[in-house]
Amino acid sequence: HSSKLPFVGTTIFSVMSALAAKHNAINLSQGFPNFKSDQKLIDLVNKAMNSGYNQYAPMRGHLELRNAISKKYELVYGASYHPETEIIVTAGATQAIFTIISTFIKPNDEVIVFKPAYDSYEPNVELNGGIPIPVQLNASNGYKVDWKLVKAKVNSRTKMIIINTPHNPSGSILSKEDMLQLQEITKNTNIIVLSDEVYEHMIYDGEKHQSACLFPDLKARSFVVSSFCKTFHNTGWRVGYCCAPKSLMDEFLKVHQFAVFGIHHPTQKGIADYMQSPEHYLKLPGFYQKKRDLFLNLMKDSRFRFTPAKGSYFQVLDYSQITQENDVDFAKRLTVENGVASIPMSVFNIDNADHKVLRFCFAKTEDTLKQAAEILCGL
Amino acid sequence: HSSKLPFVGTTIFSVMSALAAKHNAINLSQGFPNFKSDQKLIDLVNKAMNSGYNQYAPMRGHLELRNAISKKYELVYGASYHPETEIIVTAGATQAIFTIISTFIKPNDEVIVFKPAYDSYEPNVELNGGIPIPVQLNASNGYKVDWKLVKAKVNSRTKMIIINTPHNPSGSILSKEDMLQLQEITKNTNIIVLSDEVYEHMIYDGEKHQSACLFPDLKARSFVVSSFCKTFHNTGWRVGYCCAPKSLMDEFLKVHQFAVFGIHHPTQKGIADYMQSPEHYLKLPGFYQKKRDLFLNLMKDSRFRFTPAKGSYFQVLDYSQITQENDVDFAKRLTVENGVASIPMSVFNIDNADHKVLRFCFAKTEDTLKQAAEILCGL
Ligand SMILES: CSCCC(=O)C(=O)O
Ligand SMILES: CSCCC(=O)C(=O)O
Repeated sequence: HSSKLPFVGTTIFSVMSALAAKHNAINLSQGFPNFKSDQKLIDLVNKAMNSGYNQYAPMRGHLELRNAISKKYELVYGASYHPETEIIVTAGATQAIFTIISTFIKPNDEVIVFKPAYDSYEPNVELNGGIPIPVQLNASNGYKVDWKLVKAKVNSRTKMIIINTPHNPSGSILSKEDMLQLQEITKNTNIIVLSDEVYEHMIYDGEKHQSACLFPDLKARSFVVSSFCKTFHNTGWRVGYCCAPKSLMDEFLKVHQFAVFGIHHPTQKGIADYMQSPEHYLKLPGFYQKKRDLFLNLMKDSRFRFTPAKGSYFQVLDYSQITQENDVDFAKRLTVENGVASIPMSVFNIDNADHKVLRFCFAKTEDTLKQAAEILCGL
Repeated sequence: HSSKLPFVGTTIFSVMSALAAKHNAINLSQGFPNFKSDQKLIDLVNKAMNSGYNQYAPMRGHLELRNAISKKYELVYGASYHPETEIIVTAGATQAIFTIISTFIKPNDEVIVFKPAYDSYEPNVELNGGIPIPVQLNASNGYKVDWKLVKAKVNSRTKMIIINTPHNPSGSILSKEDMLQLQEITKNTNIIVLSDEVYEHMIYDGEKHQSACLFPDLKARSFVVSSFCKTFHNTGWRVGYCCAPKSLMDEFLKVHQFAVFGIHHPTQKGIADYMQSPEHYLKLPGFYQKKRDLFLNLMKDSRFRFTPAKGSYFQVLDYSQITQENDVDFAKRLTVENGVASIPMSVFNIDNADHKVLRFCFAKTEDTLKQAAEILCGL
C-alpha cells in the first residue's frame, strides 16, 4: 500500500520522551506538567463516574461544560459563543485541529502555516490532499510575522491560515497589531482561520492574550481551539474544545460525529463543575510566570542565551556558545550524556533549518527545574 | 464553503435519543446500557487518577492495557498480536474506524460495505474521496451475505472491505463459512479488511464469534476493531482499540498520533487492572442472552414478528402486521405517542429502502425491558 504520508515518522514528542525514559533523564521535552493537578478536580471526575455520567455524552459535549466554556469567553474576552451551536468539546485540541482540517481541506487547497510549526498541522493538511504553504519565522527577530510576506502567499486557492498564539514551540505571542493585520488580509476572502490557543492562559509580563475571538471580522471566520489538558494540568485526559460560528460548526459536526462521536463523559462533567470557579484558570498566568522566572533566573549565568518566553510553557534556549553541533544531535547527547531532555527546534522549521536552539518545558516542579538548571549551567 | 459531506445530516442515534429525551420516552434507540457498570471498575479508574496516571499516555496506549488486550486475543481466539507493534488503543471503536479509513483510503478507492451499515462507514470513506460500494443484505433471509455478489464487485480499485460481526443493526452474525469465503475472495489481493467486532462478547445460543483473527490469511490483511465501551458497559468512556499486522499498524500510527495522540490515561490504566480477571468479559454472552430472552419472551404475544438476534445487543422487530407506515414515521410516532424510542432500519439501507423493521436495544434493566414490552404488546 503506498503511504498517504510517506515522509511522516514518529512525532518528536514521543521520540524524545522515550529517549528520556530510557536514559532516566529529566524530561523537559514533551509539554506536560510533572506535578499533580488539583485534587478537587480529580474528586469531581470520580463523583461524576459515581453519579452515573458513564454513557455517551451528547456529541457536541456535555451541556454544562459547553455553558462553562461559553461563560469563559464572555468573562475573559467579552466574546459570545452560543453553547448550543458554536462550541464543541473534542478529544484534546489535537482532535479539534485534525477534524477542522479534515472537514474543510480538499485536494489542492492551500493552507498557510507559520514555521516553526506544531508538528501535526502539515501532515493533517497533506492527509486531505491539501498543500501546506509554510512561512518561516526567525528567532533573530523574536519570531515576528512579516504580514507582507503572508499577504503575498494568499491567493484564490488559500483555504485556511493556521495561527498559534501563544506560540509552541517558540514561546512568542501575536500582538493586537498582528491580529489586525491578519483580519485585514483575510477580509473579503473565504479563508478560514484556525487559531490554536491552547496556551491562552499561559501568558506573562502582564501581556494580554489576543484571541481571534476579540476581532469581530476574524471571529466570524475562525475556529478558536483550546484545551483543558493544558489549562488544568492533566494532559492525559484528552478534553479540548473549539468554538466557531454556527455555519462552520455545522460542517465540523458532520465529521466530528463520525471521528469520535463524543468525549469521556465523567471528565467533562467533572471539569464543568470545576469551571464554576473561574479563578481556577484566571490564576494560571501568575502560576506559570513564577516557574518561567525561576528557570530563567537559574539559567542567567549559563552559556545558553535566551529571550524570555512571552507565553506558553516553553522556553527556547540558544546553545551556540556551547557547541556548533546540530540541534537534533545536541538534544540527543544532552539527554543521553547529561540527563536533560529537550526538543530540537529544527524539526519544526522549513527544510529542518537548524538555528542552534532547543525548547525546554518549564511546567515542572521547582525541584525538577533546579536539577535541570544545575546540569545546564555546567555546560 | 462547499461541503465535503453534502448529504450527511445528524446521526440517527443522536436524533432518536434527543427525541426520546424530549418526550420522556423509554430509550431503546441508541445502543447503550441504562445500568451502572461494575463499581470495581469505576474505583480502579479513580485509583489510577489518584496514583498520577494523568499525563499523556503513550500514543499506542498504556502498555499494561495493550498487554491485557494481547492476552485476551490469545485466551479467547488463540490469536497472537504483539502488544508493542500490533495493538493501538483508540478513542472508542469510532476513532479506530475513522482513522483506519483516513489512513488508507485515497480519492477513487472503492470500499465494499454491507447494508444495512453502521452509519459512520460511508461518510468516513467519502470524506477521503473514496467510493462506497454497497451490498444490500435482507431481513427475509436473515441478512445472509451472497459472496458471489461480493466477488463480482471486487476489482483493482477495491481497497477495503468492511465487515461487522455481530452485526449492528441487524443482530446477525457471520459464520465460519462466511469468513472462509471472504478469505478466499481477498486472497492474492491488496485488499484491507476492516473487521468491526465491537459486539464480539455479545453472542448467543452457544454460537462462537468468528473473529477475523481466527483465519490466518485474513488476519494478515485485517484491522480487528473492538471496544471497552460496549464490553464494560460504559459507552461514554470512549476507549476502544484495534489490532493489525505491524506493517498496517505503522501506517495507522502516523495518522493516529495527529488525530488524537493518546487516550484518557487513567481510564486505560483502570481497565488494564480490571482485565486481569478475564471472567469480566467471558461472562458477557450469558449476561446479555438473559436480557435478549427476557425481552423476546415478553414480546412473543405482540403483533411484532422477529427472529432472535444471534449477536449484538440489538433486536430487530418487524411491525408490518401493525401498520404500513414507513419506519422513520413509525419510529417517531412510537416515541412521541407511545413512549418507546427505537431506530428505524431504513436509514442504514441502500436508497433508504424501508423493510418495516425497527431496531431495539436490549442493554437495559429488566424493569425497563418490561415497561417497554408492555407498551409494544399493546400495539
Ligand atoms: C501531544 S504530545 C506534544 C505535547 C505538546 O504539546 C508539546 O510538547 O508541544
Ligand atoms: C455512537 S452512537 C451509536 C451507538 C451505537 O453503536 C448504536 O446505537 O448502534
